[in-house]
Amino acid sequence: MRTLEVTINSREDVSLTVYLQDVEKEFRNITKRPAVLIIPGGGYQFCSDREADPVALAYLKAGYDAFVLRYSVGDKYKWPEPLEDYEDAIEYIESHAEEWNVLTDKIAVVGFSAGGHLAGAAATIANHKPAAVVLGYAVLNEVVDEIAQDAPRIAEHVDYDTVPCFLFASRADNVVPVKNTLDMMNALDKAGITFESHIYAFGPHGFSVGDTAIQTRESSFCERIPNWVQDSIGFLKDVMGDFYVGTAENKILTEPKCKAHMTDDGSAWLSLDCTIGRIFGNPKAKEVLIDVIAIMQKKIIPFTPEMTFGDMMECFSRMKLRDLLHERSIEIDEEKIDALLGEVPNI
Amino acid sequence: MRTLEVTINSREDVSLTVYLQDVEKEFRNITKRPAVLIIPGGGYQFCSDREADPVALAYLKAGYDAFVLRYSVGDKYKWPEPLEDYEDAIEYIESHAEEWNVLTDKIAVVGFSAGGHLAGAAATIANHKPAAVVLGYAVLNEVVDEIAQDAPRIAEHVDYDTVPCFLFASRADNVVPVKNTLDMMNALDKAGITFESHIYAFGPHGFSVGDTAIQTRESSFCERIPNWVQDSIGFLKDVMGDFYVGTAENKILTEPKCKAHMTDDGSAWLSLDCTIGRIFGNPKAKEVLIDVIAIMQKKIIPFTPEMTFGDMMECFSRMKLRDLLHERSIEIDEEKIDALLGEVPNI
Amino acid sequence: MRTLEVTINSREDVSLTVYLQDVEKEFRNITKRPAVLIIPGGGYQFCSDREADPVALAYLKAGYDAFVLRYSVGDKYKWPEPLEDYEDAIEYIESHAEEWNVLTDKIAVVGFSAGGHLAGAAATIANHKPAAVVLGYAVLNEVVDEIAQDAPRIAEHVDYDTVPCFLFASRADNVVPVKNTLDMMNALDKAGITFESHIYAFGPHGFSVGDTAIQTRESSFCERIPNWVQDSIGFLKDVMGDFYVGTAENKILTEPKCKAHMTDDGSAWLSLDCTIGRIFGNPKAKEVLIDVIAIMQKKIIPFTPEMTFGDMMECFSRMKLRDLLHERSIEIDEEKIDALLGEVPNI
Amino acid sequence: MRTLEVTINSREDVSLTVYLQDVEKEFRNITKRPAVLIIPGGGYQFCSDREADPVALAYLKAGYDAFVLRYSVGDKYKWPEPLEDYEDAIEYIESHAEEWNVLTDKIAVVGFSAGGHLAGAAATIANHKPAAVVLGYAVLNEVVDEIAQDAPRIAEHVDYDTVPCFLFASRADNVVPVKNTLDMMNALDKAGITFESHIYAFGPHGFSVGDTAIQTRESSFCERIPNWVQDSIGFLKDVMGDFYVGTAENKILTEPKCKAHMTDDGSAWLSLDCTIGRIFGNPKAKEVLIDVIAIMQKKIIPFTPEMTFGDMMECFSRMKLRDLLHERSIEIDEEKIDALLGEVPNI
Repeated sequence: MRTLEVTINSREDVSLTVYLQDVEKEFRNITKRPAVLIIPGGGYQFCSDREADPVALAYLKAGYDAFVLRYSVGDKYKWPEPLEDYEDAIEYIESHAEEWNVLTDKIAVVGFSAGGHLAGAAATIANHKPAAVVLGYAVLNEVVDEIAQDAPRIAEHVDYDTVPCFLFASRADNVVPVKNTLDMMNALDKAGITFESHIYAFGPHGFSVGDTAIQTRESSFCERIPNWVQDSIGFLKDVMGDFYVGTAENKILTEPKCKAHMTDDGSAWLSLDCTIGRIFGNPKAKEVLIDVIAIMQKKIIPFTPEMTFGDMMECFSRMKLRDLLHERSIEIDEEKIDALLGEVPNI
Repeated sequence: MRTLEVTINSREDVSLTVYLQDVEKEFRNITKRPAVLIIPGGGYQFCSDREADPVALAYLKAGYDAFVLRYSVGDKYKWPEPLEDYEDAIEYIESHAEEWNVLTDKIAVVGFSAGGHLAGAAATIANHKPAAVVLGYAVLNEVVDEIAQDAPRIAEHVDYDTVPCFLFASRADNVVPVKNTLDMMNALDKAGITFESHIYAFGPHGFSVGDTAIQTRESSFCERIPNWVQDSIGFLKDVMGDFYVGTAENKILTEPKCKAHMTDDGSAWLSLDCTIGRIFGNPKAKEVLIDVIAIMQKKIIPFTPEMTFGDMMECFSRMKLRDLLHERSIEIDEEKIDALLGEVPNI
Repeated sequence: MRTLEVTINSREDVSLTVYLQDVEKEFRNITKRPAVLIIPGGGYQFCSDREADPVALAYLKAGYDAFVLRYSVGDKYKWPEPLEDYEDAIEYIESHAEEWNVLTDKIAVVGFSAGGHLAGAAATIANHKPAAVVLGYAVLNEVVDEIAQDAPRIAEHVDYDTVPCFLFASRADNVVPVKNTLDMMNALDKAGITFESHIYAFGPHGFSVGDTAIQTRESSFCERIPNWVQDSIGFLKDVMGDFYVGTAENKILTEPKCKAHMTDDGSAWLSLDCTIGRIFGNPKAKEVLIDVIAIMQKKIIPFTPEMTFGDMMECFSRMKLRDLLHERSIEIDEEKIDALLGEVPNI
Repeated sequence: MRTLEVTINSREDVSLTVYLQDVEKEFRNITKRPAVLIIPGGGYQFCSDREADPVALAYLKAGYDAFVLRYSVGDKYKWPEPLEDYEDAIEYIESHAEEWNVLTDKIAVVGFSAGGHLAGAAATIANHKPAAVVLGYAVLNEVVDEIAQDAPRIAEHVDYDTVPCFLFASRADNVVPVKNTLDMMNALDKAGITFESHIYAFGPHGFSVGDTAIQTRESSFCERIPNWVQDSIGFLKDVMGDFYVGTAENKILTEPKCKAHMTDDGSAWLSLDCTIGRIFGNPKAKEVLIDVIAIMQKKIIPFTPEMTFGDMMECFSRMKLRDLLHERSIEIDEEKIDALLGEVPNI
């Protein structure tokens, strides 16, 4: 493993600590690595060391490369400078991606507290969107006004282009109320974005990875807190793909198990992952699916003879077509259907 | 272990399955046991067997007694009959508590889907409140209208008397949208009630305990789902106490690590667990705390000479006094202070 | 779930407690269930309740049916009466297998301390061999003489027909020294039997499932102890198969991931799971494998030009042929080769 | 975190990679850190990168500093050069301990395969003994002859001065047979040394930390394998102490929960952790314990009136006196008794 400390722009105190792991040889298929960019918290007053190395080490151990961004804080803080620092960091990483063997489309941003605000900005309003973000006891809504009056309330900027989020917090956090995380979840839900969240019953603000070495377990500390680390790694593997282990060539990661959106209803073209309501409300799609509909009628209708096919589809209108096919064990060439739908504009 | 199937009222199809574990002898201090009352889901149309025994077994293994309530469903359903079934069940358990060695003030209710709606009603509007509830992919708000138009929206009934809640769900649930769980969390947050929640990135509705034996892992299934079982047991131990292991006599459970409310601001009398804003806004309390204030001034003020003590207290107004004492390592006889505050009416 | 208390023979105090879970309907493919037969410890003086229900509940939760055998102890003890009780129990279960929906070839025996001695006897010298055994801080060798002079030392009876064993113990056990478990592991290793073992650094004898409800965590107690429960369930799934979840008909369990023997060298016929030494020492097998050898020579030889093929095979003589094919990524129709070897007597 | 690559002696290819974490400030009580010295495997032919950084990262994340030793291999190998490299490494670390803030009496050695052989040598025959060792699928006995004819069989060198060992392996390892680990455990048991071990049912040699990023999960791979990492960290905390979290000054680590020896029978002076047989066989000790004996007689004898006190003590002769006092809940000033016994020579 190599570590570097680099300067990414002309701002004082802004730095990127770089941790690069070996590739190839004994690591076989791993010719490049996915990565995490870690943004420590500190109320935009400082960058906490407790949320820097210890976090990087957790993801490094799981096989990711890691970067820790120390951004404009204290006297140097003025929105949007921290966000520009982030953009600069990503650009710097991208410009060194070949040399460093980093998969630039597989970078997750992990932020804590005020750093979680910045990670939230990365997920929503940044030019360089990461593949996913991890938001730890993050400042995402009202409290923003207290620590950074000029900064955006992240939860208000969530839209269809927001990236998948993993959120965690202590319900008893008396520095950044859990309401921040709840507001973000509501916004993500409304926008149809994939997320996972773990809110622990009690525990202090700023617990980082929750190990004894972090030195915050002194007071009331929920035993389940440290679980977020492995859970977030599982989430990143679900949405970005896991390390592929096998003999196929040029394959570094597996396919993600989980898409970034709950449905494809917001996409430009239809797909099997659009809802039934969306698909069956589109005349062109109904034409394309004529054979599928015939099969579905044969399979589904007998169980509910009192309903017309139209009624049924209305009943399932919120369900993805793919899910209905699976649930009813309707055997059909999904790839082909998906391809056909993929030529129908979603209007 | 004994199992019984009992009739708790005159309604057809309503039954209580009772699982009672041994006490005393090799189980030493355990002369009575805490318990869980499990309420399976099924859209108020049926009671799912997948959410009955397998759930009971998980809590039994952890040392709890268990009850499974099969309530008025299908043709027999009409609100508030399921809730009355619940009340009848608790009354039945209470009337047999001596015989069954059940700790009636340590019963948690665990409900799934529509059963989670009923568990939510137990937590909010029931006459017999449990010590805590576990709400699994529960119907708690809008969807209530779809499965039971006449039933209350639970999230709208949350108040200071609502009991601690453990919530879990799949973000991708296409039967009961995760919005139900989010709305409940928002209501709990607003009311200052203790809760914990785990929302998994994907997975189907109705996964129960998530084991292969539940037979729902077929389609897309998030590997972290089964964790809710141990996590909920940890939560119940946190809010109801864990089994005491030691030589003290007549001690069955330890003290809970976590109170039911985030602060005691809603209680009739003040305490160390009221917020600083609440305490210092009460003239009688300021009298009582005169010595404490002197110590705090000596300990805290030097670090922020530019602030008056009043300013500081305003700055910390949302923090519990107990937390501030811990955080600043102010050594003081907390029990005594708590007792003194306990004589000040919270007005 | 049904529970029954049945009498399996004419001996006083001998009883079988039966826990049967539902099958079919919501449990879909599960038309019958695998099971565990639990044998509590107690030095052949009594049967410990701490090693009865709490253990049954753990496996029941995982989907198994459970039986607890209370066998001849105290005044009623005289070897081989406990073993006969075991045989009677299995015969009783087998005679009720249809009625109870039990998979009789998928029964594991789980024994503790003296009950672990009896489980060890089931694994080695019984007429009715289970599919696997779990041996908890079991009496397996020298100590046998102290608690039951007339009983066999289990470790001395391990042979090729012994079933897969999962062993666990505390290294600091001052009642049944860990030596018992070590001796058993040595015997299993020598006999080529599959096993898994977990020896925890410290903790008392008789910890059962290690929960607080077991009431043994008072003194020095290693935090990792309770892990054996899930680990043993994982092991049973590995050697007996896990619950199948899918649409194939009549499929209750998946194929085991792990065979009962390390190699098939002790079997009557050869297979891909025989060692290279065994296979290549058999002239008939070499004839059958003539094409395979050609492929192997082409694939392997180039990397070590200084060795003859015979030398190489000698170098790998302890490795299973299947493992070598996998390790070198030699693509070949394994099923076909296995079938061919299956017609060669292992002499 | 700083990383350094240093030369510790004049041998070519021998290097020490150093990973040092921050101390003090946000890490409060942590003014120095415990550490692990990692010794990768590779049959004394090379040093595996898979058993270097990924292992270091796991322990770093838990708060330890880490060192990776690349020792004399291949043409450079000749016993005892690797052992001398190890001694040089420890001396180098000790000479930089002040600068690097390393707790030199809290260094554990973690070795794999051939590196596990070297770690085993550190635990038994080295001049610089670590506080504990972790031995992963290690070469410890017969196989030594195959990879290094001139090197010692570690299991034969275990004695009372051997340090606590954490061992893990795959039962199906076809490169280094599990017998190596079993032989070591037998030797440790005989010598009365603390150990913990986890042997997984199946899985290949060389799995390192078992993550997908290690690229060995392709073939048959037991799901429980990666657990050894957290388990070994728990073990190190048990035998070396965990990070202290609290307000006491100058306290970096807690007291270990587990001593290095099962009893103090091999020590120069008696203690409460000697066995009853050892203590009561020493006339001077019996004098010192005269009051304790009186209390024990009053507490224990009534339950077994048919036995003399001498008979009872013989019956418990293998038990530590401390354990007996705990088990019978005999309340006594243990520290005082321990001090008194500490003045009695163990002869």
